[in-house]
Amino acid sequence: MQIGMVGLGRMGMNMARRLVQDGHEVVGYDRAREPVEEAGTYGIKGAYTLPDLVKALVQPRVVWIMVPAGKPVDEMITSLADLLSKGDIVIDGGNSFYKDDLRHAGQLGVKNIHYLDAGVSGGIWGLEKGYCMMIGGGTKTFEYLKPVFKTLAPESGYLYCGPTGAGHFVKMVHNGIEYGMMAAYGEGFEILKASPYGEHLDFGKISDLWNHGSVVRSWLLELIADAFSKDPELSDITGYVEDSGEGRWTVQQAVESGVQAPVIALSLFRRFRSRQEDSFGDRVIAALRKEFGGHAVRRTGGKVRSVSAGAGQVKPASAEPIGHKDTKSRRKS
Amino acid sequence: MQIGMVGLGRMGMNMARRLVQDGHEVVGYDRAREPVEEAGTYGIKGAYTLPDLVKALVQPRVVWIMVPAGKPVDEMITSLADLLSKGDIVIDGGNSFYKDDLRHAGQLGVKNIHYLDAGVSGGIWGLEKGYCMMIGGGTKTFEYLKPVFKTLAPESGYLYCGPTGAGHFVKMVHNGIEYGMMAAYGEGFEILKASPYGEHLDFGKISDLWNHGSVVRSWLLELIADAFSKDPELSDITGYVEDSGEGRWTVQQAVESGVQAPVIALSLFRRFRSRQEDSFGDRVIAALRKEFGGHAVRRTGGKVRSVSAGAGQVKPASAEPIGHKDTKSRRKS
Repeated sequence: MQIGMVGLGRMGMNMARRLVQDGHEVVGYDRAREPVEEAGTYGIKGAYTLPDLVKALVQPRVVWIMVPAGKPVDEMITSLADLLSKGDIVIDGGNSFYKDDLRHAGQLGVKNIHYLDAGVSGGIWGLEKGYCMMIGGGTKTFEYLKPVFKTLAPESGYLYCGPTGAGHFVKMVHNGIEYGMMAAYGEGFEILKASPYGEHLDFGKISDLWNHGSVVRSWLLELIADAFSKDPELSDITGYVEDSGEGRWTVQQAVESGVQAPVIALSLFRRFRSRQEDSFGDRVIAALRKEFGGHAVRRTGGKVRSVSAGAGQVKPASAEPIGHKDTKSRRKS
Repeated sequence: MQIGMVGLGRMGMNMARRLVQDGHEVVGYDRAREPVEEAGTYGIKGAYTLPDLVKALVQPRVVWIMVPAGKPVDEMITSLADLLSKGDIVIDGGNSFYKDDLRHAGQLGVKNIHYLDAGVSGGIWGLEKGYCMMIGGGTKTFEYLKPVFKTLAPESGYLYCGPTGAGHFVKMVHNGIEYGMMAAYGEGFEILKASPYGEHLDFGKISDLWNHGSVVRSWLLELIADAFSKDPELSDITGYVEDSGEGRWTVQQAVESGVQAPVIALSLFRRFRSRQEDSFGDRVIAALRKEFGGHAVRRTGGKVRSVSAGAGQVKPASAEPIGHKDTKSRRKS
């Protein structure tokens, strides 16, 4: 099949490569020149402008968009609505919000251009192992494009989920679940590390062990084992956790539907907290404790904070490490 | 190797069978007569009293305990401390609290009986696939028992974690993580179901899809796919979620160490809430809304509740299903 790939970033380029490797003909366009040139080395035909891409495709044209969600996709849909013709097909494979899909499908629909939304999971491993794909839109268009999905996905790795937006919706919730799972693993390892056994435990070996027959085995845990094998204390990494939107939308969707999703919501809020050096809310709480109980507070002084003589700190008896007498040299805080 | 298995419940019996299948000699004891008789059919020698079990074993005796945590283990340790001799070995393979391990190791230690704690994961699948095992205690005793662990575990499926209690500690945190993962999956599927796409989505297919190349693939998700394949709406199951202790201990440990574990804690509290038909806290909140704003409340009347004419309910616009006009016949609430 012939496919036009718009956006040759890490995802778009690798998906184009996977398509070419399986015998499809791919024409690649990117607004930057270098990726188009690089694409040539993988057997992907280059187009340096969007009209060139459209000209290079045979009708019904198939254009797969892999550009950042939001304004870039909006602009691309508007351009394609102008350039494409009746019966052509546009697939948005990025991380768009499902309500944008409804808008884009309408925009293209008035010109009788078909639209599919594809939620794609797999990240940097996709080129080798395939991309798990959740697809929404018209069933006929889905059927027509099956050869493309078969190539991009691992075996049993694509699914028609429902009408327009369903693919991105299912992918959005997938990412919300991912937030919760990651938070659970993070908290578990923090409890292990802070425990009386902390100095004895080998987190790399434990995560690898858990992947052999335990109930919490997962692909995420394999990645955790890899990370620990490279850096047992993760000392090269700061606990600053970004998010890319789907977690927020998942929580907003729960609110919109009026169902509870406290664990996913809290996992999202944990990420927000991870980016704050200091929290205004915590300053309010500390101030309140001082106001009603005279409890000591830590004062900010330029960038250095002075500590009020450890007041208010409780050291639990069990913080003593177990099974080891001389531990000072091995402990870090 | 010769092993005495105390407690021939589902876990103990299957572990004994797996040991016998791999050429070990197992003597099995249970306080009930039937499991001891059943054990005979698997090639496990039977002992109808604990002294009989001890007599049947050659020194240094190896006694593996698989009885419920708490009082049953306490009593068994006390009995074994009387019956066993210097150099014998006791392994607690149940779900004991790690602080009980420290106590039990001390109790047996004064008689020079060695003690290991083994956290065992794998549940009803262990007989076939092996049990993931986290082991704590003395390293020499661990080395001595390696042939037993090798038989019980899948490949790379056992680990010496640290001194006494470390095995059960790591297993405890493992279960805490499991709570968080399960909550995340549960919330995700609830958001899918409550969404405008809810009636289109096939949860069995989605969970199976996610296991093929997506980031959230896991063994738990395979079990979810199995459950949906048997009962797509899970209509035979009530959302009443028990717990077996480790989640509580994990949260208590986080408090003891003074580290945050909000997602795991909330996953535990979700389970508590799942067992309440009505929550006293929610009655307080409803009463407060009535007091300050005159908002309607639902009144209890015997076991039947009357509803105050839907007051205070908000129906969001997007609750309309997408892509389907006549949905009444297919929808359930």
